[in-house]
Amino acid sequence: MSDEGKKSLAMVVMSGDFDKLAGAFIIANGAAAMGMDVTMFFTFWGLRAIKKNVGSGKTLFGKMIGLMYGGGIDKSHPSKFAFGGMGRWMFKKMMGNHNVQTLPEMRDLAVELGVGMYPCQMSMDVMEIPQESFIDGVKDAVGVGFFLLKAQTAEIQLFI
Amino acid sequence: MSDEGKKSLAMVVMSGDFDKLAGAFIIANGAAAMGMDVTMFFTFWGLRAIKKNVGSGKTLFGKMIGLMYGGGIDKSHPSKFAFGGMGRWMFKKMMGNHNVQTLPEMRDLAVELGVGMYPCQMSMDVMEIPQESFIDGVKDAVGVGFFLLKAQTAEIQLFI
Amino acid sequence: MSDEGKKSLAMVVMSGDFDKLAGAFIIANGAAAMGMDVTMFFTFWGLRAIKKNVGSGKTLFGKMIGLMYGGGIDKSHPSKFAFGGMGRWMFKKMMGNHNVQTLPEMRDLAVELGVGMYPCQMSMDVMEIPQESFIDGVKDAVGVGFFLLKAQTAEIQLFI
Repeated sequence: MSDEGKKSLAMVVMSGDFDKLAGAFIIANGAAAMGMDVTMFFTFWGLRAIKKNVGSGKTLFGKMIGLMYGGGIDKSHPSKFAFGGMGRWMFKKMMGNHNVQTLPEMRDLAVELGVGMYPCQMSMDVMEIPQESFIDGVKDAVGVGFFLLKAQTAEIQLFI
Repeated sequence: MSDEGKKSLAMVVMSGDFDKLAGAFIIANGAAAMGMDVTMFFTFWGLRAIKKNVGSGKTLFGKMIGLMYGGGIDKSHPSKFAFGGMGRWMFKKMMGNHNVQTLPEMRDLAVELGVGMYPCQMSMDVMEIPQESFIDGVKDAVGVGFFLLKAQTAEIQLFI
Repeated sequence: MSDEGKKSLAMVVMSGDFDKLAGAFIIANGAAAMGMDVTMFFTFWGLRAIKKNVGSGKTLFGKMIGLMYGGGIDKSHPSKFAFGGMGRWMFKKMMGNHNVQTLPEMRDLAVELGVGMYPCQMSMDVMEIPQESFIDGVKDAVGVGFFLLKAQTAEIQLFI
């Protein structure tokens, strides 16, 4: 239950895979549409879901991570059958054929529905991703304690 | 708590990996054996867990998915060390040696114990998998809202 | 809520990946530091997180698993960009640069904070990993029913 007496959902999003991110946003948006208070805590690979399409990292390591895992949500691969981009193309095609939203559209809807999207400060430090690299609508970075407080009172908790 | 006053478990099964599916069914069956009301919501790759051993898809994309990820639960690979089928063979052997049930046996037990196995309608649409392709005992397809309502009142929620 | 009236967290740790294990311990230690009662139920690949750096398995299969997935927590690879050990090296470097604990340090802290670390008996049987192969501080092996009882009364449940 949230402070305003709404049922609530608290989710860790650690994956940066296309399919997992689609699952995370479909669940988050469904819950928000049902009037739930929704918190998404983006950590590690999950940070890509809220990044603008820009590079990252100042040090050599940061730049390497940026090169290997650069680009925003639209560059994510499915966790199976990545095939160097072919898998992503195919799933986008199939989702389009069946009138399912694209990942960027799902994310826009999450912002509209008031889903609380929080980046993990420690992951940002380790991967050298600054707050400015996130899209508008993303909250200020928080720590794991923030997530745990939300999760303690939430009706639903998930790790994705 | 379920409508009948039982403690309840609600689970998203998105993975189609051998080891993750084994984990999902072991947890689900354990909970059902303890008298809990159990809901498994199968999405995306997880749909393979409830499919008969038949092909899928009418369009080119559907057929490709079918080819790449075809077959039912007995064709699933472990998430590590797939080795083109070798990993699956080895784990089945080791599980057999130690009197652990096979995946199809676990699934049969889930049906017997009254575990509610629900396919995700949106995933079925995108992957072009019709209701007829599922084994007996699987419920009619539902949306994410159904899962969320179950999860809101469940004592335990998991995403696998 | 635990027997002593503390808020509680119950977690299945099935993954043996570097990044997932870091996430699991960061969440567990954060919760324990906030005064929560924390249960980690290590299954399958997750068992590596609590192993000493020794081989495993008496049968051919056990030895093969040991060879392929041998070594303890310090040998875990990230779930992306393993690059034959290069990914692990890079992440350790980046975490060190930003004063994040190493995995073994996180695990030591979990022991100190009184996190309950339980190995899964069935996984130990299948993978032929004996209780002696675990570090000090690990509890005696339990079954899935133990986890489910902890999870039923826990405020937070996660599957990692």
